[in-house]
Amino acid sequence: MKKMFPDTHNISDLLKLARKFNSFYLSGLHQGICKPFIVAGHQVGLIRPNVMKHLQRFPQVFRITDKFVELNPAFRDYRERTIKMAETLSHLQKDNDLVALKGWRDECFAVSAPFCHENLLEMDRSAICLFGIRNYGVSVTGYLIHPTKGLCIWLQQRSFTKQTWPGKWDCFVSGGLAVGYGILETTIKEAAEEASVTGDIAKNLIPAGCVSFYFESERGLFPNTEYVYDLELPLDFVPQNADGEVESFELLTAEECVQRALSPQFKTTSAPVLLDFLIRRGYINPENEPNYRYLVELLHVPLQSIYNWPYAMVSTTNGDINDV
Amino acid sequence: MKKMFPDTHNISDLLKLARKFNSFYLSGLHQGICKPFIVAGHQVGLIRPNVMKHLQRFPQVFRITDKFVELNPAFRDYRERTIKMAETLSHLQKDNDLVALKGWRDECFAVSAPFCHENLLEMDRSAICLFGIRNYGVSVTGYLIHPTKGLCIWLQQRSFTKQTWPGKWDCFVSGGLAVGYGILETTIKEAAEEASVTGDIAKNLIPAGCVSFYFESERGLFPNTEYVYDLELPLDFVPQNADGEVESFELLTAEECVQRALSPQFKTTSAPVLLDFLIRRGYINPENEPNYRYLVELLHVPLQSIYNWPYAMVSTTNGDINDV
Repeated sequence: MKKMFPDTHNISDLLKLARKFNSFYLSGLHQGICKPFIVAGHQVGLIRPNVMKHLQRFPQVFRITDKFVELNPAFRDYRERTIKMAETLSHLQKDNDLVALKGWRDECFAVSAPFCHENLLEMDRSAICLFGIRNYGVSVTGYLIHPTKGLCIWLQQRSFTKQTWPGKWDCFVSGGLAVGYGILETTIKEAAEEASVTGDIAKNLIPAGCVSFYFESERGLFPNTEYVYDLELPLDFVPQNADGEVESFELLTAEECVQRALSPQFKTTSAPVLLDFLIRRGYINPENEPNYRYLVELLHVPLQSIYNWPYAMVSTTNGDINDV
Repeated sequence: MKKMFPDTHNISDLLKLARKFNSFYLSGLHQGICKPFIVAGHQVGLIRPNVMKHLQRFPQVFRITDKFVELNPAFRDYRERTIKMAETLSHLQKDNDLVALKGWRDECFAVSAPFCHENLLEMDRSAICLFGIRNYGVSVTGYLIHPTKGLCIWLQQRSFTKQTWPGKWDCFVSGGLAVGYGILETTIKEAAEEASVTGDIAKNLIPAGCVSFYFESERGLFPNTEYVYDLELPLDFVPQNADGEVESFELLTAEECVQRALSPQFKTTSAPVLLDFLIRRGYINPENEPNYRYLVELLHVPLQSIYNWPYAMVSTTNGDINDV
């Protein structure tokens, strides 16, 4: 193995970090207090009790049973579902009770069913986490092999005016998949807007898989899948933000990246992308990380099996997976 | 994206392949007819009814209840458990009823508990699948970037005298983790034995994660985790087998590899390693594989959550994950 991979640096905290961005997968999921959210016969989300309480006020929109919450099946198509949902969210936003809706985005996310390429409805990005809708994004790791420092990675600090995770450190470039945009298309667009990556450099983007994890915060539930792209950057490339969403960029060594990811200054839900990159590049490896295989598993949690009502693979008790 | 990635070649069959090497994960697991196998309070395996029938003849070794099969807890330590298990397997082998034991290996595999670095017992490699013990191995993808053909991969054809999958096409180099050998150590040893990879070339081995899947065959249950390594080979390198376990080697383009993996001539349980490599290298990507994210998930099934009795995340019904 190349000498660039350290044998001894302390990465035992990485599993703790993986448990943090899987807070819902490893805990809330098994408490059985969230109900599947059903649209047109498909489970598209999970709803927490604090949100259910509010939805009860809209019996013409939501049918709430012992087992699930269903969007009124009388809403016949994409357009009608989208309109009814928007009206409901507008009411809820005015009430000002739900933290998530304080970050209204005016950017719509598509809600789709598993193995179904047709979308069922769209809703404002801020509301996705209230319904535990699966969220898809793209993330680019911009890296270079420095002649003396070895593997180095560009990170961005998010703008202090961002609605979510303001001022936190984040991957080089990332963005949500909005309605009507393709995956590679979104990646190229975000790389240009966030870091002034030109078309010539973007030609070197390599798709390298995806990470899936299930995070929970005060705002809601985040069953996230990020399509990951690697981008080797020229040594003299310096990213310049073009859309006002980035505070600054910094080039870090792989070891500095690990330390940054472990710090409270890092956006928790971006850590999976960084860990996956460092694993794929051999920096984190079976020789220096005792819980390597658990870590890899927690970067790919089975969201398709979880969102599979009434067949969901969800136990009702909490496993000793948490006792690590 | 680089031109090397085709947009249109037919890889819709890849999800079918991923379902094939996850035959137990997607089907048998949910039928609820297998019982957890408990050793020293830890779930280390799953046992099928056809095997349970034979174990009933050894009540001093196995306690079989409605819910689980337990190795007699009176066996106090690694040594005693290993001896008792070996005696039992010796009886079963003489009966000649169990297909798996016809391939006796005289090579011991360690049985370990989750998150526990101490092993509980060891048993012959051929018996692992009777108890559904988690199986760990290493796999090397030997590749090169050919000046005209682009990404090319060396595959091996297994010897026709091998006990398992004789004559089938397989990864460049692979091997099981036997008791007393480290992960990187096993990788270097197998690369030398199977393909005459010298120490100088082995220095370029890059650990790149692991794949986990759950296969079932006539022989038994295979909850497998493979630590994957990438090895860029010199253009003029020609692998030479040194241990008699390989019939031949062949250098294939990425597209030829996909076709080989889809053919019945390929070892089903080696396909995950090849697919993971082609995904990490961008050859299979979100633009050319409509079920990309499901494919990535089926390369990392949650074995740690499944082997978590009495908290296992196993449903009792079969989900529509199979209806793809």
